Amino acid sequence: MEQLTIIKIGGNILDDAAALQKFLDAFAGISGAKLLVHGGGKIATEMGQKLGLQPHYVDGKRVTDAATLELVTMVYGGLLNKQLVAALQQRGCNAIGLTGADANLLPADKRPVNTVDFGFVGDIRYEAVNAPLLHQLLQAGVTPVVAPLTHDGKGQLLNTNADAIAGALARGMAPLLPVRLIYCFEKAGVLTDVQDERSVLAEVRHEALPQLKEKGIISDGMIPKLEHAFAAAAAGVPHVAIGHAASLRGLIEGTTGTRIL
Amino acid sequence: MEQLTIIKIGGNILDDAAALQKFLDAFAGISGAKLLVHGGGKIATEMGQKLGLQPHYVDGKRVTDAATLELVTMVYGGLLNKQLVAALQQRGCNAIGLTGADANLLPADKRPVNTVDFGFVGDIRYEAVNAPLLHQLLQAGVTPVVAPLTHDGKGQLLNTNADAIAGALARGMAPLLPVRLIYCFEKAGVLTDVQDERSVLAEVRHEALPQLKEKGIISDGMIPKLEHAFAAAAAGVPHVAIGHAASLRGLIEGTTGTRIL
Repeated sequence: MEQLTIIKIGGNILDDAAALQKFLDAFAGISGAKLLVHGGGKIATEMGQKLGLQPHYVDGKRVTDAATLELVTMVYGGLLNKQLVAALQQRGCNAIGLTGADANLLPADKRPVNTVDFGFVGDIRYEAVNAPLLHQLLQAGVTPVVAPLTHDGKGQLLNTNADAIAGALARGMAPLLPVRLIYCFEKAGVLTDVQDERSVLAEVRHEALPQLKEKGIISDGMIPKLEHAFAAAAAGVPHVAIGHAASLRGLIEGTTGTRIL
Repeated sequence: MEQLTIIKIGGNILDDAAALQKFLDAFAGISGAKLLVHGGGKIATEMGQKLGLQPHYVDGKRVTDAATLELVTMVYGGLLNKQLVAALQQRGCNAIGLTGADANLLPADKRPVNTVDFGFVGDIRYEAVNAPLLHQLLQAGVTPVVAPLTHDGKGQLLNTNADAIAGALARGMAPLLPVRLIYCFEKAGVLTDVQDERSVLAEVRHEALPQLKEKGIISDGMIPKLEHAFAAAAAGVPHVAIGHAASLRGLIEGTTGTRIL
């Protein structure tokens, strides 16, 4: 195994059937060891509505109560994960769907309650990622497809941000082999003008982050995503990039998107 | 790896929290390589009702339409499977949850439509079970927990009987190492008097099956279960037994339950 490519996709692409098919074609075509981390999508919200769940938010963040944890375990760990696995199998890619509980891949701690109780949300124990086992799975020739769930090792599943999971897996594997970590989303990268897809910054350094926030170039959901990307780069992941899911090859080759340094 | 113990549990034990905890303690305590196959449970029916699904039956068998397939993929492949994995991890057992699509473990064909269309139901291709990959997983020290789902290799997930899955995995692994296959259910074994748990037949031979059916000793749901058990024994699985989930150790040691010959 010469290197490992870790790709993260979010709800935006999971909700667009045509774009997802194209992405999966490109993903299946990546040579060498690879791993896919996926987020949720509209289906979780829709299923929650059908089940009569009322989503609760605190400071714009969704609270994971017991019913919501059941919902995401079903939809992320079951429906989405297994549909992605079956679709990759169809493409000759020997996918294996996992959560962070499977093979003890991602031990986590339930987020402590300070002012807000976010419920069954897991903060990954970065130093405890089961990289040796993941390495064995990759050596067996399978392609892990990881749903955004972790566990506390005491029997409790936990809801965890998929960007954080991709970063944690990359950081865990980096000491074992060269890792490329690619965050795919619905933009061509970090844009100086959010209306102009051609205004992609080829690279962003951590030092530049406060200035970029101040100018409003990085805001909202991009902030936590970039924080995870910077944390992975700082922790020794040699290649971290962010860009459009439709440009997977360019992102891997470093010809498109924004490189995180 | 000296041998492999494959245990199948059904909905009956999944629905009884206290019995399930005891079973998982016993399962985690089995020495050597082991694998758990689980069925569904009331939770699938309950969740289906909440989602407004109307179950359809033909000749007493449930038809798996597209909405039901989504339901079982969520509940069997997601909720139940991951809850079992987390509960085994709590017990120090390095469980990994799988469906038959994961790692291409159980290729299947959609059941052909004769008089009845059972929908998205998969008949396992016994010769195609991915035993070499399963062997690698077991050698990596993980304990597969398998949900009753397969796939056709063309992107379609399929609903499949858990008894058939346990039998298929045992038959696939038998050429590689000695396999014990244990079907756990809510009775002490094959009973000559269904009212008397002490009337367990210590063994049943395939030749005796017609006579046992005629006497009414084997009927209803026991018939397909025993058919799978006999098929596994006939295909070279050296140890096949059936008995109560609360007597796991005795079933493995051959001191309780009914041995299938």
